[in-house]
Amino acid sequence: MAKIAILLGSDSDLPVLDKGFKIIEKLGLEFELRILSAHRTHDEVVEYIESLDSKGIDVVIAGAGKAAHLPGVIAALTVKPVIGLPIRASLDGVDALYSIVQMPGGIPVATVGINASDNAVLLAAEILSLKHPELVANLKQHRVEMKEAVLEKDRKVQAKYNK
Amino acid sequence: MAKIAILLGSDSDLPVLDKGFKIIEKLGLEFELRILSAHRTHDEVVEYIESLDSKGIDVVIAGAGKAAHLPGVIAALTVKPVIGLPIRASLDGVDALYSIVQMPGGIPVATVGINASDNAVLLAAEILSLKHPELVANLKQHRVEMKEAVLEKDRKVQAKYNK
Amino acid sequence: MAKIAILLGSDSDLPVLDKGFKIIEKLGLEFELRILSAHRTHDEVVEYIESLDSKGIDVVIAGAGKAAHLPGVIAALTVKPVIGLPIRASLDGVDALYSIVQMPGGIPVATVGINASDNAVLLAAEILSLKHPELVANLKQHRVEMKEAVLEKDRKVQAKYNK
Amino acid sequence: MAKIAILLGSDSDLPVLDKGFKIIEKLGLEFELRILSAHRTHDEVVEYIESLDSKGIDVVIAGAGKAAHLPGVIAALTVKPVIGLPIRASLDGVDALYSIVQMPGGIPVATVGINASDNAVLLAAEILSLKHPELVANLKQHRVEMKEAVLEKDRKVQAKYNK
Amino acid sequence: MAKIAILLGSDSDLPVLDKGFKIIEKLGLEFELRILSAHRTHDEVVEYIESLDSKGIDVVIAGAGKAAHLPGVIAALTVKPVIGLPIRASLDGVDALYSIVQMPGGIPVATVGINASDNAVLLAAEILSLKHPELVANLKQHRVEMKEAVLEKDRKVQAKYNK
Amino acid sequence: MAKIAILLGSDSDLPVLDKGFKIIEKLGLEFELRILSAHRTHDEVVEYIESLDSKGIDVVIAGAGKAAHLPGVIAALTVKPVIGLPIRASLDGVDALYSIVQMPGGIPVATVGINASDNAVLLAAEILSLKHPELVANLKQHRVEMKEAVLEKDRKVQAKYNK
Amino acid sequence: MAKIAILLGSDSDLPVLDKGFKIIEKLGLEFELRILSAHRTHDEVVEYIESLDSKGIDVVIAGAGKAAHLPGVIAALTVKPVIGLPIRASLDGVDALYSIVQMPGGIPVATVGINASDNAVLLAAEILSLKHPELVANLKQHRVEMKEAVLEKDRKVQAKYNK
Amino acid sequence: MAKIAILLGSDSDLPVLDKGFKIIEKLGLEFELRILSAHRTHDEVVEYIESLDSKGIDVVIAGAGKAAHLPGVIAALTVKPVIGLPIRASLDGVDALYSIVQMPGGIPVATVGINASDNAVLLAAEILSLKHPELVANLKQHRVEMKEAVLEKDRKVQAKYNK
Repeated sequence: MAKIAILLGSDSDLPVLDKGFKIIEKLGLEFELRILSAHRTHDEVVEYIESLDSKGIDVVIAGAGKAAHLPGVIAALTVKPVIGLPIRASLDGVDALYSIVQMPGGIPVATVGINASDNAVLLAAEILSLKHPELVANLKQHRVEMKEAVLEKDRKVQAKYNK
Repeated sequence: MAKIAILLGSDSDLPVLDKGFKIIEKLGLEFELRILSAHRTHDEVVEYIESLDSKGIDVVIAGAGKAAHLPGVIAALTVKPVIGLPIRASLDGVDALYSIVQMPGGIPVATVGINASDNAVLLAAEILSLKHPELVANLKQHRVEMKEAVLEKDRKVQAKYNK
Repeated sequence: MAKIAILLGSDSDLPVLDKGFKIIEKLGLEFELRILSAHRTHDEVVEYIESLDSKGIDVVIAGAGKAAHLPGVIAALTVKPVIGLPIRASLDGVDALYSIVQMPGGIPVATVGINASDNAVLLAAEILSLKHPELVANLKQHRVEMKEAVLEKDRKVQAKYNK
Repeated sequence: MAKIAILLGSDSDLPVLDKGFKIIEKLGLEFELRILSAHRTHDEVVEYIESLDSKGIDVVIAGAGKAAHLPGVIAALTVKPVIGLPIRASLDGVDALYSIVQMPGGIPVATVGINASDNAVLLAAEILSLKHPELVANLKQHRVEMKEAVLEKDRKVQAKYNK
Repeated sequence: MAKIAILLGSDSDLPVLDKGFKIIEKLGLEFELRILSAHRTHDEVVEYIESLDSKGIDVVIAGAGKAAHLPGVIAALTVKPVIGLPIRASLDGVDALYSIVQMPGGIPVATVGINASDNAVLLAAEILSLKHPELVANLKQHRVEMKEAVLEKDRKVQAKYNK
Repeated sequence: MAKIAILLGSDSDLPVLDKGFKIIEKLGLEFELRILSAHRTHDEVVEYIESLDSKGIDVVIAGAGKAAHLPGVIAALTVKPVIGLPIRASLDGVDALYSIVQMPGGIPVATVGINASDNAVLLAAEILSLKHPELVANLKQHRVEMKEAVLEKDRKVQAKYNK
Repeated sequence: MAKIAILLGSDSDLPVLDKGFKIIEKLGLEFELRILSAHRTHDEVVEYIESLDSKGIDVVIAGAGKAAHLPGVIAALTVKPVIGLPIRASLDGVDALYSIVQMPGGIPVATVGINASDNAVLLAAEILSLKHPELVANLKQHRVEMKEAVLEKDRKVQAKYNK
Repeated sequence: MAKIAILLGSDSDLPVLDKGFKIIEKLGLEFELRILSAHRTHDEVVEYIESLDSKGIDVVIAGAGKAAHLPGVIAALTVKPVIGLPIRASLDGVDALYSIVQMPGGIPVATVGINASDNAVLLAAEILSLKHPELVANLKQHRVEMKEAVLEKDRKVQAKYNK
């Protein structure tokens, strides 16, 4: 079954994952969640990333705030795709965004929007679908539902405002 | 063979791809390059994205500058992973970065650094390696070579500066 | 009668329209409001924009936050004037502003201030006044009333503070 | 015939208009160009804006850099649509952009991108097309040509890069 | 007696003046306060600025938010010193700051910090002291009191924290 | 005769003063120029500022780049008006602007635009005109000439572009 | 015993020190706290900095907000290491950060993150450990405890989320 | 003898060190220079940092651009003071500054200005002077020379400009 690893730099960032957990459930993904700091627990990060193959995990989401090094540090440890999730902890999240997306040449991090854990999980699923083609249907179904949700809101608004 | 699609919003952005082309060659990837504008040639974008399956292309790199909509527009057309490459055309590239990375919930774009076509291609290869495991060795070899290049520079600098 | 189309990317942005609705009422405009996403419901956006002629609608206001593509996507579908309303959802609205105002050459979006739905509607009315000259008097009357409101406040402040 | 007024705060900004002049010629517009400063020649600005009706001019483009007040000052003098063109003279043009787009409620300025004189003229033409419907065909033709230009570049790039 | 004119673009900005009013009282200044908009009530602004000489007012404080044109518009009407007070209404006040401080060459505005009405009044008093030398003693006395206030806080903190 | 003191943090900033020197000459001002660093030569700054009274100098222009402390340090040493001139040496001059304009309450600095030495001198002259009323005529004459210069450019542009 | 001096520009910034005080206690440091303004009480700052040698204090932490000159002013008075602590009082703390970190060549300030008093104290202790080697063990112990705290959180999160 | 370690993320950043090398020579410091990437050569970074004690090196300068992780990664490996040198490679160096200075609580980096290698070395020497008190005289002498250099420039400027 398709499984993703999620690493956060701090457990205070857990609420940011709420939107992501909903997508995980909707798409029927498995996940492992770890709280590990790039700087304070580097060895555990290394150990965990090295264990991914044996666990059948092919994509990593890493979220951090401020000078957010965790996604880049993980990306340097693996050639599996690493998704960087900038978390707003200061400076409106711009410091985290720059610290993640502006990685030097050679070590890419697939960065999503500030606090956008839903998009991080969706991107993970899109990537996993290369190996788990059954996810494609789920992803397309989610798109259909999102579209339906917009259209439903549109109908309500039209009923209220348009004569 | 592993193949990526690259779409640019303008042919004036072609030089930005130079670093990416080198990685493509090094990793032995195939690619298709298109110049298509999200706004001026939307139909052609749709048509091309719909053709990806038949061409065996599983990942898209889309680069654009200013109010860079191309990556997001493509991401809305497919559940394949789309890599957004912000191109510096004004405001130091911050406008392109925000227009790409801050996508609304539901339509993720895997954003890399400003003008970082090398990282865009490497990320594409990492993603493709889920389906084309033979890429893993190439990616790891590239890491080894990058490391060697750094160590070679380090040796030269040490020889010159450290007694 | 002069009529404007208003499209929002999300119904959570509806409160931003409050100031705009007041101007609509004051100026005696008609409007249609749609909740449509550039990415999730592109077909409906196309269909709606193509229907504008038959409805006698000559100007569109499009509001969105974050990587706000809706105004630009609409502008690419029509040569009618499209007014872009950046909505503050993150980064103080700067991401939305850049994603709207920095459109590439060829597809202009008439951008107003962040969350400034009143100015969006006033601009729509000014544009419509080219075809509906009866709006000119209403617009001028609104300017007179704004001036009166400032002067009234000025009188109160003068009475309180100036001896 | 459809005619636009263009006001610049300084003649040193004239080169910024080059892209705009090309669109003017392509669309067959007439224009009047004035160099007038909001602060140094306020009376002349007032006088000129008051003359627009008699000249059959229904839309104004105003460009300025730095603390760019000219577009807002003009917008306060008329209920005709005023297009603001932020010009890059310092701070990458962000100061001009903010000084133009963030107008207080009641006095809208239709702002285009930094140095985007082409989009300023296209927007002017779109607005004028409400009164001069013959412009619609020209605007649509320009879109067709832009599309053709992109496709031509795309063909060249495909011929060179795609096997 | 030394007198200053204070103009605000909107009465909603009155609370920003609180710190300034305290300095006015402390220094024994007179003032006139007006709520006048650069755009909505330009004639009244002109009329008021032209009346300053007859009222013996030699310095003007002008405060405004967003695209804050009021200080620059006033500065264009007089060669008396005009102090610009950027007010935080959006974008953390950066839009107001840029719209005030980045005035084009020829029309200076003496800009103080965002929402810093105390410094605006102190600067006004420093300027007026050239003509009203009796203010110098008050200004120096205020500096002495500020110093005393800091030292008093320092003593309390030392008593509490330092053994 | 009206005299201003100009202090720069570094002689490498001298070219920034060119526009200011022209205004000095035009208005018939006297000046003293010093290169003094707030940090390296604090004593000399103190000594010089204390000498201003004896020299009949009533206003100071202080220019510096980066973390520009010189204007604030001087403002803390005197209750004479101090004009802060932010100089672009890094970060487009935003660091210097913030370091000068955002002074804490109690010590105002009259800040002008980045590199705007002309406006610094004009503001100095406006302030000095409270004590040297003969400057008023010169300042008004300069405004007249600036207006004439704009109108002359306007005539040339009209002759070239307007039929 | 190892002792640090802490200077704040205002007692309203005291709460920012809370995290720092905890580190001080944990590491068994001594400290002196002063509230002194670079501008209002320059003499007292000079006097205090000159007293450091006699008190056996070898490192200074200086915190301030807005145009934060205190750290730089202190750094100019001593060749002891000065740690700058930017405090968020406006503009998200960016003005304080730039005013502290962008010091001109010759007078360095060791800048830590916005409001990061914990890191300021840790850096002070790291510096002091050159002279007080007994601090090394405490610093290493703190790292061990931080690591343990992360791992404890990690265990809890794993127990809750990972099957 | 007092010795510092300097690590750069890339040899293309070597020219940034020029100003720092001059200070090293002036102060009579020893140094070791390494080109090591936090991400590509993490093991070598660890190995080198672990060797510092045996080499008698007590302070590290680490410079990097873009998403500059090197200083923070090193700071996590040692409780010796680590000086972060943000290097301008994109976004005017703001990305590097944020990635270095905004470190999470527990792992401080002593950050200096963008490209300010001179201040990095001076800060290193100030720190080393706690253990090598003979450096104090050199540092004070450098201050004296800097002061002399300013005064010499001041004399030249006075001779030229002041009558």
